Amino acid sequence: MHPAIFKAMETANKGHVVGYGDDPYTEKAIAIFKKEFGEKTEVFFVFNGTGANVLSLSTVTQSWHSVICADTSHIEEDECGAPEKFTGCKLLPVQSVNGKITPDAIKHHLKGFDFEHHSQPAVISISQVTELGTVYTPNEIKALANLAHKNNMLLHMDGARIANAAIALNMSFKTFTKDCGVDILSFGGTKNGMMMGESVLFFNPELAKNTKYIRKQSMQLYSKMRFVGAQFLAYFENELWNDTAAHANRMAKLLETEIKKIPEIKITQNVEANGIFAVVPREIIEPLQKKFFFYVWDEMASEVRWMTSFDTTEQEIIEFVDLIKKLLSTKN
Amino acid sequence: MHPAIFKAMETANKGHVVGYGDDPYTEKAIAIFKKEFGEKTEVFFVFNGTGANVLSLSTVTQSWHSVICADTSHIEEDECGAPEKFTGCKLLPVQSVNGKITPDAIKHHLKGFDFEHHSQPAVISISQVTELGTVYTPNEIKALANLAHKNNMLLHMDGARIANAAIALNMSFKTFTKDCGVDILSFGGTKNGMMMGESVLFFNPELAKNTKYIRKQSMQLYSKMRFVGAQFLAYFENELWNDTAAHANRMAKLLETEIKKIPEIKITQNVEANGIFAVVPREIIEPLQKKFFFYVWDEMASEVRWMTSFDTTEQEIIEFVDLIKKLLSTKN
Amino acid sequence: MHPAIFKAMETANKGHVVGYGDDPYTEKAIAIFKKEFGEKTEVFFVFNGTGANVLSLSTVTQSWHSVICADTSHIEEDECGAPEKFTGCKLLPVQSVNGKITPDAIKHHLKGFDFEHHSQPAVISISQVTELGTVYTPNEIKALANLAHKNNMLLHMDGARIANAAIALNMSFKTFTKDCGVDILSFGGTKNGMMMGESVLFFNPELAKNTKYIRKQSMQLYSKMRFVGAQFLAYFENELWNDTAAHANRMAKLLETEIKKIPEIKITQNVEANGIFAVVPREIIEPLQKKFFFYVWDEMASEVRWMTSFDTTEQEIIEFVDLIKKLLSTKN
Amino acid sequence: MHPAIFKAMETANKGHVVGYGDDPYTEKAIAIFKKEFGEKTEVFFVFNGTGANVLSLSTVTQSWHSVICADTSHIEEDECGAPEKFTGCKLLPVQSVNGKITPDAIKHHLKGFDFEHHSQPAVISISQVTELGTVYTPNEIKALANLAHKNNMLLHMDGARIANAAIALNMSFKTFTKDCGVDILSFGGTKNGMMMGESVLFFNPELAKNTKYIRKQSMQLYSKMRFVGAQFLAYFENELWNDTAAHANRMAKLLETEIKKIPEIKITQNVEANGIFAVVPREIIEPLQKKFFFYVWDEMASEVRWMTSFDTTEQEIIEFVDLIKKLLSTKN
Repeated sequence: MHPAIFKAMETANKGHVVGYGDDPYTEKAIAIFKKEFGEKTEVFFVFNGTGANVLSLSTVTQSWHSVICADTSHIEEDECGAPEKFTGCKLLPVQSVNGKITPDAIKHHLKGFDFEHHSQPAVISISQVTELGTVYTPNEIKALANLAHKNNMLLHMDGARIANAAIALNMSFKTFTKDCGVDILSFGGTKNGMMMGESVLFFNPELAKNTKYIRKQSMQLYSKMRFVGAQFLAYFENELWNDTAAHANRMAKLLETEIKKIPEIKITQNVEANGIFAVVPREIIEPLQKKFFFYVWDEMASEVRWMTSFDTTEQEIIEFVDLIKKLLSTKN
Repeated sequence: MHPAIFKAMETANKGHVVGYGDDPYTEKAIAIFKKEFGEKTEVFFVFNGTGANVLSLSTVTQSWHSVICADTSHIEEDECGAPEKFTGCKLLPVQSVNGKITPDAIKHHLKGFDFEHHSQPAVISISQVTELGTVYTPNEIKALANLAHKNNMLLHMDGARIANAAIALNMSFKTFTKDCGVDILSFGGTKNGMMMGESVLFFNPELAKNTKYIRKQSMQLYSKMRFVGAQFLAYFENELWNDTAAHANRMAKLLETEIKKIPEIKITQNVEANGIFAVVPREIIEPLQKKFFFYVWDEMASEVRWMTSFDTTEQEIIEFVDLIKKLLSTKN
Repeated sequence: MHPAIFKAMETANKGHVVGYGDDPYTEKAIAIFKKEFGEKTEVFFVFNGTGANVLSLSTVTQSWHSVICADTSHIEEDECGAPEKFTGCKLLPVQSVNGKITPDAIKHHLKGFDFEHHSQPAVISISQVTELGTVYTPNEIKALANLAHKNNMLLHMDGARIANAAIALNMSFKTFTKDCGVDILSFGGTKNGMMMGESVLFFNPELAKNTKYIRKQSMQLYSKMRFVGAQFLAYFENELWNDTAAHANRMAKLLETEIKKIPEIKITQNVEANGIFAVVPREIIEPLQKKFFFYVWDEMASEVRWMTSFDTTEQEIIEFVDLIKKLLSTKN
Repeated sequence: MHPAIFKAMETANKGHVVGYGDDPYTEKAIAIFKKEFGEKTEVFFVFNGTGANVLSLSTVTQSWHSVICADTSHIEEDECGAPEKFTGCKLLPVQSVNGKITPDAIKHHLKGFDFEHHSQPAVISISQVTELGTVYTPNEIKALANLAHKNNMLLHMDGARIANAAIALNMSFKTFTKDCGVDILSFGGTKNGMMMGESVLFFNPELAKNTKYIRKQSMQLYSKMRFVGAQFLAYFENELWNDTAAHANRMAKLLETEIKKIPEIKITQNVEANGIFAVVPREIIEPLQKKFFFYVWDEMASEVRWMTSFDTTEQEIIEFVDLIKKLLSTKN
C-alpha cells in the first residue's frame, strides 16, 4: 500500500459518516470517475478483482448466456469458477496469442444465436494489461468492440492492471476503454498501490439499474465504504496512479534489460507493462523463490512470471539479477 | 416410439400404483439394470438426456470443480448451459478429433490441484457414440479412466446413443462402460425408440447417496414413473434395443454406401454408428431439408449431419439419395 | 392416464415430425391454449409441475428478488428447494389459512423496496386448487393481483389442479386466472388424467421473450414434444378435462358425505375440489395405507390427505369407507 | 476504525510479504484464534459479515438443504438473498421472540427427513447479539445445539456483534460458542472497531476441508490479507475488543437510562448489548435523523433502532437525548 493511500485512509477515519457508500469520500471518488469517463458513467466500488469481474458479468448476463474470453484470462483460470457459479453462464475460452484474443479467433463461437439449445453469446471479455503482460492497442480493442456490438453483445474489460496499460499506451483511461467501445470496465486499484478496492464502471447507465442489488448479493458491498472512496481520492490526486504505474513499468523494463544479458534465460513475451515472462533453467526456480516471491507460470515449460510494482526498487532488481547469475554459475 | 414400447405403456396404465418410482414397473426395470451392470449399481430414471447429464455431474461435483469434455460434446454445445447453471462448475472444452478426446489432449488441464484460485478438475466426460458419430474403443476409454482415477477424478459417459455404440462394438453395455472404468453413465433410451426416459447409473453406490434429492431438485423426478419403468422393461425384453439400434446402424451404412457413389459429396467422419457427416453443395441443403429433416452441422463448411433411426426404412434411404441426385443434376 | 389420452398418443406416434415442439400436434395444442386464454398468451410445455413452477418463476425473477407464497405451497414444501436453486430467489412463506393467503397476511413482506440490503419482492404465488383442497374465489384472486400490481409485482398461479378448481367454481379457466389479474399460470395436466405434461402460460408476451432458453437450461425441453401436444389436444377435445375433473370432485364429495357419518374422524378443511383432509385415529392409518395409498399430512396432528381422481370409482370409495369402519371397530 | 487498529495496519504495510494469507500477520492472527477456541479450529478471514455467513453456510450445506433461522436474522432480512443465491438452500424463517428462536419454535420444521420432495433441514443459524439487541444465554444455545445435533444438523452462529455478547455475558468467546455446541461461527470485527474483516471458524476441521475453494469462489479471498491479519492481532492485543465492546455496551445502558426518563418513548427490547429499540413519536424521527444516523426498524410501528459503538461519547448521548427532548417539546 502506498503511503499516500495510507494517509488518506487515516484522514477518512475521523468523524462519523453514513455507511454503505452514502458518505462524502465515496461521493467525491465517484465524481472523479465520472469526470474521467463521462458523467453518465455508473460507478460501483467493490472489494477485489474477482468481485469486480463477477459484478461486471452478473449485471449484463443471464444464466443462459455465454462469455467469450482468453484461455489465459483471470476469469477463466484464476477465480475458482466464481463467474460460472455466480452468473450461471458458460465461459468460452479462446486460444490467445500473447495473452490477446482477436475477432478471427472468436468468430467460430458467434453461432447458435436464437437457437435455444445453445448458450447465447452475450459478452466478450478481455484483460488490459493481459495476463501475459501485453497491452491491447486501441485498434485491437475497437475491432473486438465492433464485433461484439454487431452481434448485440457487450465488451467487458478486466482492468486489474489498467494503470500499467495507460502508462504503456501513454493515453488517458477513457481513450482506450470507453472511446474504443468498451461497455463495462473492472477498474483495478489494489495492484497499483491501494490497500484494496476496485471499481466497476458501466458506460451505459441503463445497464446498471439493478447493479446495487447484485453487488450486495455478491457480498461485495462494503459497510465502511469511505475507506475505499478515500483511497481512490488519493489514487487520483496528483495522478498518484501515474507515478506508481510508471515506476512499475520502468522497473520491468530495467529487469528486462538485465535479463536479456543472461543467455540461459529466454524472455517469452513482449515486456509492455509490469510483467516479465521467461523460461529459466528449472534448477534455479526454487532457490530464487526462497528469496523472492513469484509464480511459476507453466510448470512443464519451466516458464515463470516476474511482476514489478510501485515499490520495487532498482536495488531489488539488481539483487534479483545477481542472485540469478550466482545460481546459474553454481549450477554450471 | 417403437410399437412394443407403446404396448408396454398401455399395459402399465392399468391399475393404481404408488407414484415417484415406488411401483413394480420401476423396480423391475431397475433390477434389469442391476443385472446388466452389477448389483451395486445405483439407478435413477430421468426425463431426458440433458437431465441425465446434469444429474450425473451434479451428483459428483461441487461448484468449485471443473469438468473436462470435448468441444463438440452435448454438455458443452447443446444444453444451453444447463451443466454450468445447475452444478456451478467450469466446463473445460478440449479440442476433439473425430469427436473424441484423448489423455494427451486433456493433460494441460490437469493442473492447479490444491490451488484455491483454480477450479479443481473433478470429472472427465465423454460421449459414446460421440457427437460426430464415432465410437470410443474400450482401450481409449480405459486410458481416459486411468488418467481420471490417477488424478482422483471420475469418468462420466454421456450414453445418449449407447445402444448404437454397443452394436458398433458388438459388446455388452458393461464391457465398454463399467469394465473400462466409467464411473457414471447417462444411459439413453429416447433416441433408440423409447417415448422418453433416460437412466443415470452410478457404479459406486457411495457416490449416489444423495442423488435422489438432486433429481427432485433438478425437476427430473417423474410422478408417474411407472411409464418410464415400463418402457425400459420393454426396451430390454428380447433385446429390443439391439434390434432398433442394429437397424439404425445398418441404415447408416446403407446411406454411406449410396452417398459414397456421389462425387459431389464428401463424407467427413467414419460412419461407425447411426450418424453420417458430410460436406454437400450448399445449394441442395435447403430443398433437401424441405423433404427430410436434418441439422446443418457446420454452416461455414456446408457440413450436414444425417441421422438414421430404428424406423428409418430402406425405401426412405433410396428416396433420400434419389432426391440428392436430382437436386445435384438440376443444379448443374 | 385416461384411455383417450393414450389413444391420442398412439395416433401421434405415426409418421416423422420435427422434434422439440416444431410439430403440428404441439402447434395445435398451443392454438387451443391461445383460444382459451387469448391470442397473446405465450405457451410453453414442460414435463412436470415442479418444472412448470420453476420455469414460471425463473422467467420473471432475478436472483435478488423474493417470492411470497403460502407456507403450505408446493414451491415451499414439496420441490426440494428447486425454486431457490434455480432462481436464486428468497421464498417468503406466509402463514396460510385453509391453504390460502390474503393481502393482509402478505402486507408485512411488502417492504424494503429499493433498499439494496433486502431481497426485492417480485412475485406473489398462489395455488389453485390449494394444497389443502380449497379454492380461491375470483375476488380473492383479484385482491392479490391488485396488491401485486400496485407494488410492481406479478401474480403467479400454480394450477397443478386447475381443472378441479374450474369445476368447483363452475367457470372457464380464463375467468379466474387472466381475467382476475394472474400474470403467469402453471397449467397442470398430469394430475387430471394426462400421462405427463404441464403448460406454462404468460399472459403478457413481453415477459416470455427468453423463456425458451430458460426451459432448455432447466432441462424441461422435451425432444418428442408431440407427445405432450397430442395429450393436450385430447385433453381439450370434447372437454375431456371437464369430465375427469368433475368426476374427481364428485368422488371427493361422496367420500366427504360418507366420512362425515363416522364420528371418530374429523374433516379439517372444506371439501371444495378433489382432496379431503381429516384427523383420524392414529392406529388406523398404517393398516389403511396397506390397501390404499395416501399421505399423512401432519404427523403430529394425525391428519391425513385423501385425494380422488378421474378414475376413482364409487366402489372404491365404499370399500375405503368400509375398511375405515372395520379398522375403527376392531380398534374399539 | 479504532486508532490502535490503524496503527497495526501501518506497521503491517512495511516490507513485502506473500499474498492471499501466506504471511506472518495472518498466521499469527490465526494462531490467536486457535488459542482462543482450541487448536483444531479452522480459521478463514473474509471481507464482511455477509461473506462470513455465506462462507459458513456454503461450507456445510448442499443446495437441497434448508437452513432454519429467525425471521429477523441478518441472513433472512439483510443480505439481499446472498445465502439462497450462493448455497441454493431454502431458508426457513421462524418467528422470533425478542430476536431469539427456541427449540419449540423450530420443531415444526424438523420434518421430511429422508423424503426427497422436501428440502433437508441441515443447519440452525442464530445471531449473537441478536438483531434486536438481545443475547442468548449459554443454556439457550445448548438447547438449540442439542436439537440440531440430535437431528444430524449443525448450529451456526452469526457473531457479527459477538464481542458485545461476550461483554454482556461476561464470558470468554469459547464459553458460549464452541462449549455450547456451536459448530460454525461467523466472528465479527468490523462492527467493533476494525476497518474490515471477519473470521469464519469451524470447530470440527473435517467440515472445512474445502472451505478455501469456496472462499475464493465466493469472492472473499483478500490478496493483501496481512491487513486483516494485522487488524485481528491488534484487536486481541491487550484485549482491545473488550474495551471497545464494553464501552459500546456501557453507552447503550446510559442511553437507555436517559430514554427511560422520557415518557413519550417506549423501549421495546431488553437492552443487553449495544442496541436500543424504541417506539418514538413519528414526527421526531426525520429531524432526529438529520443530526444522527439511525435506521427505522419498523415503519408501521414507528420503531427505531439506535446503535452505540466503540467511539460513541457520553457527550453525544447527552446531545442526542437533548435533541429528542427539544423535538418533543416543539411538537407539543
